[in-house]
Amino acid sequence: MKIGFLGLGNMGGPMAHNLLKAGHELTVFDLSAAAVANLVEAGASAAPSIAALAGSDVEMIITMLPAAQHVKGVYLGEDGLLAKVAPEVRLIDSSTIDPMSAREVATAAAAKGNRMIDAPVSGGTGGAAAGTLTFMVGGEQADFDAALPVLQAMGKNIVYCGPSGNGQVAKVANNMLLGISMIGAAEAMNLGVSLGMDPKVLAGIINTSSGRCWSTDTYNPYPGVLDNAPASRGYTGGFGTDLMLKDLGLATEAAKQARQPVVLGALAQQLYQTFSGQGNGGLDFSAIIKMYNGAIE
Amino acid sequence: MKIGFLGLGNMGGPMAHNLLKAGHELTVFDLSAAAVANLVEAGASAAPSIAALAGSDVEMIITMLPAAQHVKGVYLGEDGLLAKVAPEVRLIDSSTIDPMSAREVATAAAAKGNRMIDAPVSGGTGGAAAGTLTFMVGGEQADFDAALPVLQAMGKNIVYCGPSGNGQVAKVANNMLLGISMIGAAEAMNLGVSLGMDPKVLAGIINTSSGRCWSTDTYNPYPGVLDNAPASRGYTGGFGTDLMLKDLGLATEAAKQARQPVVLGALAQQLYQTFSGQGNGGLDFSAIIKMYNGAIE
Amino acid sequence: MKIGFLGLGNMGGPMAHNLLKAGHELTVFDLSAAAVANLVEAGASAAPSIAALAGSDVEMIITMLPAAQHVKGVYLGEDGLLAKVAPEVRLIDSSTIDPMSAREVATAAAAKGNRMIDAPVSGGTGGAAAGTLTFMVGGEQADFDAALPVLQAMGKNIVYCGPSGNGQVAKVANNMLLGISMIGAAEAMNLGVSLGMDPKVLAGIINTSSGRCWSTDTYNPYPGVLDNAPASRGYTGGFGTDLMLKDLGLATEAAKQARQPVVLGALAQQLYQTFSGQGNGGLDFSAIIKMYNGAIE
Amino acid sequence: MKIGFLGLGNMGGPMAHNLLKAGHELTVFDLSAAAVANLVEAGASAAPSIAALAGSDVEMIITMLPAAQHVKGVYLGEDGLLAKVAPEVRLIDSSTIDPMSAREVATAAAAKGNRMIDAPVSGGTGGAAAGTLTFMVGGEQADFDAALPVLQAMGKNIVYCGPSGNGQVAKVANNMLLGISMIGAAEAMNLGVSLGMDPKVLAGIINTSSGRCWSTDTYNPYPGVLDNAPASRGYTGGFGTDLMLKDLGLATEAAKQARQPVVLGALAQQLYQTFSGQGNGGLDFSAIIKMYNGAIE
Repeated sequence: MKIGFLGLGNMGGPMAHNLLKAGHELTVFDLSAAAVANLVEAGASAAPSIAALAGSDVEMIITMLPAAQHVKGVYLGEDGLLAKVAPEVRLIDSSTIDPMSAREVATAAAAKGNRMIDAPVSGGTGGAAAGTLTFMVGGEQADFDAALPVLQAMGKNIVYCGPSGNGQVAKVANNMLLGISMIGAAEAMNLGVSLGMDPKVLAGIINTSSGRCWSTDTYNPYPGVLDNAPASRGYTGGFGTDLMLKDLGLATEAAKQARQPVVLGALAQQLYQTFSGQGNGGLDFSAIIKMYNGAIE
Repeated sequence: MKIGFLGLGNMGGPMAHNLLKAGHELTVFDLSAAAVANLVEAGASAAPSIAALAGSDVEMIITMLPAAQHVKGVYLGEDGLLAKVAPEVRLIDSSTIDPMSAREVATAAAAKGNRMIDAPVSGGTGGAAAGTLTFMVGGEQADFDAALPVLQAMGKNIVYCGPSGNGQVAKVANNMLLGISMIGAAEAMNLGVSLGMDPKVLAGIINTSSGRCWSTDTYNPYPGVLDNAPASRGYTGGFGTDLMLKDLGLATEAAKQARQPVVLGALAQQLYQTFSGQGNGGLDFSAIIKMYNGAIE
Repeated sequence: MKIGFLGLGNMGGPMAHNLLKAGHELTVFDLSAAAVANLVEAGASAAPSIAALAGSDVEMIITMLPAAQHVKGVYLGEDGLLAKVAPEVRLIDSSTIDPMSAREVATAAAAKGNRMIDAPVSGGTGGAAAGTLTFMVGGEQADFDAALPVLQAMGKNIVYCGPSGNGQVAKVANNMLLGISMIGAAEAMNLGVSLGMDPKVLAGIINTSSGRCWSTDTYNPYPGVLDNAPASRGYTGGFGTDLMLKDLGLATEAAKQARQPVVLGALAQQLYQTFSGQGNGGLDFSAIIKMYNGAIE
Repeated sequence: MKIGFLGLGNMGGPMAHNLLKAGHELTVFDLSAAAVANLVEAGASAAPSIAALAGSDVEMIITMLPAAQHVKGVYLGEDGLLAKVAPEVRLIDSSTIDPMSAREVATAAAAKGNRMIDAPVSGGTGGAAAGTLTFMVGGEQADFDAALPVLQAMGKNIVYCGPSGNGQVAKVANNMLLGISMIGAAEAMNLGVSLGMDPKVLAGIINTSSGRCWSTDTYNPYPGVLDNAPASRGYTGGFGTDLMLKDLGLATEAAKQARQPVVLGALAQQLYQTFSGQGNGGLDFSAIIKMYNGAIE
């Protein structure tokens, strides 16, 4: 398929590479010349501008951008995608943004006659490189079906979440719960160990009991409990504290707009913000356990 | 085995019955004559006082009491167990109390020459009746081994947690995380649904993602997601809000004594307290989701 | 002075009336014909559009709008104020919005050659009617000086807060602290009374001690402590819960952008959101004490 | 008057000295020989034991002890005060403990025929030395009247709070609000300054607005705002973080027993605990602002 790809950063770059590998024909755009050159070397064509990419003969355009303001700029701007793209081109935004903005852009696309889905991902840069991302997709079922073969070239778990914006809703709800659970796991592990328990024994009990969660059985924040968790390699790699902070910001913003309370979600955001402000924004988010006990390495 | 059993309430009563069923010889005591009569009818002998039970020819005494003050009273009182019991009698306290109190009583027992373990349970009254409780055991490994056959008559998952008090530590740490996760699950489910997602679809996505936890995949607080969860039967049965409140009180108290923060744990306690104060203490603890959306039945 | 006034709602309406009373010549605009008619009857001229008001011969334009999106629309829109206004016209925005948006608009005004200050108010609709508002002003000192006589026709406490946006900063910081203090006061009063103290005695002690704050000595949330506080008239009148919620939303948003934690501020926002979601958004914000004790009327 | 004084620590020592200065005849007891010697040198007599002090010919006994367990031990122990003291001796406990414990001891005293009041203080070691403490007194009005001249030798603000235990209630409620307000003040000051405001200007605005509180106008946590606040001398002196932590522990414990939520109170406790755990327990409690911005000295 002829596909346009816009946004070749840490996530978008490897995703575009996987599309090439799967045999798709790619036209790409990014503000970074180096990022573009990297894809061109792998076989992609470069578009000189967003408008040029929009005006080319692609059948589908995928965007992967940092935040809602960039998505709105790229799609809704005067020389943006919607101003230039033909109505039969399918649009996929894989950026993680708030559901309301996603719906606003999708509504504008529909008004121009374009089919659009939101398809944020989880799985990090590792998943992007390996082609094992999870895609959470919002939009019409038929548009999900049409996009499925393309998304499968970049991920292995492609989930339909319902109408437009619901991909973002699913991601924001899941990640808010993740951010809360991780702090809960950190508090429970640290409390138990400070009261005399061996961390592996404690994790073993929790993992077969009602406190069990992904943050204890797959990504335990206590060093040494799981060999392959960031906690066992100095909290490097993994999912950065500042990325979790961004997602919690989206969750609390969405909650504010929906006039729903998210008490623990908001508190979790503040704790990660405190931890980030102490210079730890680049560490894996499970490092939040260090706020509880400075002695944990 | 000749066993003394002290405390025949909602939990202790069925536990004692299971010991009788397993063929043990039981001497029992409780302040409630009805509770005692019920066990006597099933084949137990009644002791007229704590001191009498302590002075009888039992080989092991099990206690199941509401709170630390009762445990201290029963074990350390002037006519209490330790004052009267022979040194070869093994002691098991299955009450849920704070780890410090558990260790204080165990130390006093050791000074008298008695082997003692703490063995709090999870699984509720249903598990007590069915003999499927989980026991979390603190004490010496040899004493755990000696108690194992007796505990297996009352439960199916008997876990050794390390030195004295660690059974309580494990329970308190697990249940604090549970209390946090449940509110996190309630917030995430309510946020997602208020933003337009179907609750079953959302739960399905979370349960295969990083937000996965027992509170979403086994005990989801949103009505209709899981047929057999309390949420699908009006939040009746299950684990009462006031019981969760008691456990969170133990967790924050233990944290205070250990001088460790439990930020989300303390906030969770306050939210359940607020919910209980609004007249909901008897509902299953997953009903906390109603604080987030009055429209949830 | 010839003044343009844009936004004649619950606050803007009475403010405009006070300008007329002080002898200023007023040209007004609002989407509500009734609001415009009301001012015209009192002696103002009506402008048919924002552009027309901007193009008239006023020396100063004051805006009083609900939220940042309206302020941006009115100032930065294609037919907005900045597109049409002469460079010598002074601009005053009295809306309460986030500091970043205020600075963005002021920067755009400066680029057009217009002097602009942000001047949000406190004092509510009562203060607006009585002309006793507090104005918190951000911008250049000279522009503050030039606006002072006009602001004094609408308020009695006009405070210079420093460079552009600082009026909003001062308001947001003060009101966040107010929102926190009020919940703190509610908790302390409710705790003390539930433990057996007379509410007036308790308030008297706090008000001469280190817990003293405006929320205890001027606006006590406990019914009957202060005769003229909303608590003593069923929490009617005063400063609505949903208005406090809006200000806390601005505070946490500003904090997010500044990457600073506001832990209690964010929690306060969530508690007011919970209270509002239970149907209490129209009550004075001190009614939050009812979340702590349903028995408080 | 002939007075017995028990507990000659950082607070009790200087209080006892002030009683001597006022001309009272003192018999003292403390576990520290040095503390006793210090008072003897100043003219007091030393009692060899609690029982001896209780059995001497004093008309009144004042106790100043670290925590409830010590108060219970001293009053209720086998050789404690109540076992040995004559019924006409008046008892005053100035320790800061939870209200329930205070009432338990007062009830035991009443059963022995002794008049007892609880009279915790605020004002710190500086106030103890200067004789300017505030006493919050619970008990019968007549007993308050009888104690007043003695208390006035040690303090200048002696407040009657109602029935037994209410002195403790007043203190706990006030200090919980103080602990909350201080964090609120820290967040508001730090937010405002990070957004570009001068700290003195911001404090000035808050102090004439609805955010005003003792923590902003008398004890501002931002360095340089108030010359004589601990913030302006590196957070030395003042009221230590660990002392605030103790009082918040009493407040949340009292709330738990009363089954009342104190959401911000509990969160404040956790934040001070986190701050203390990072090695700052000895700093004045206003240093909590450093958790918000490491750049604040």
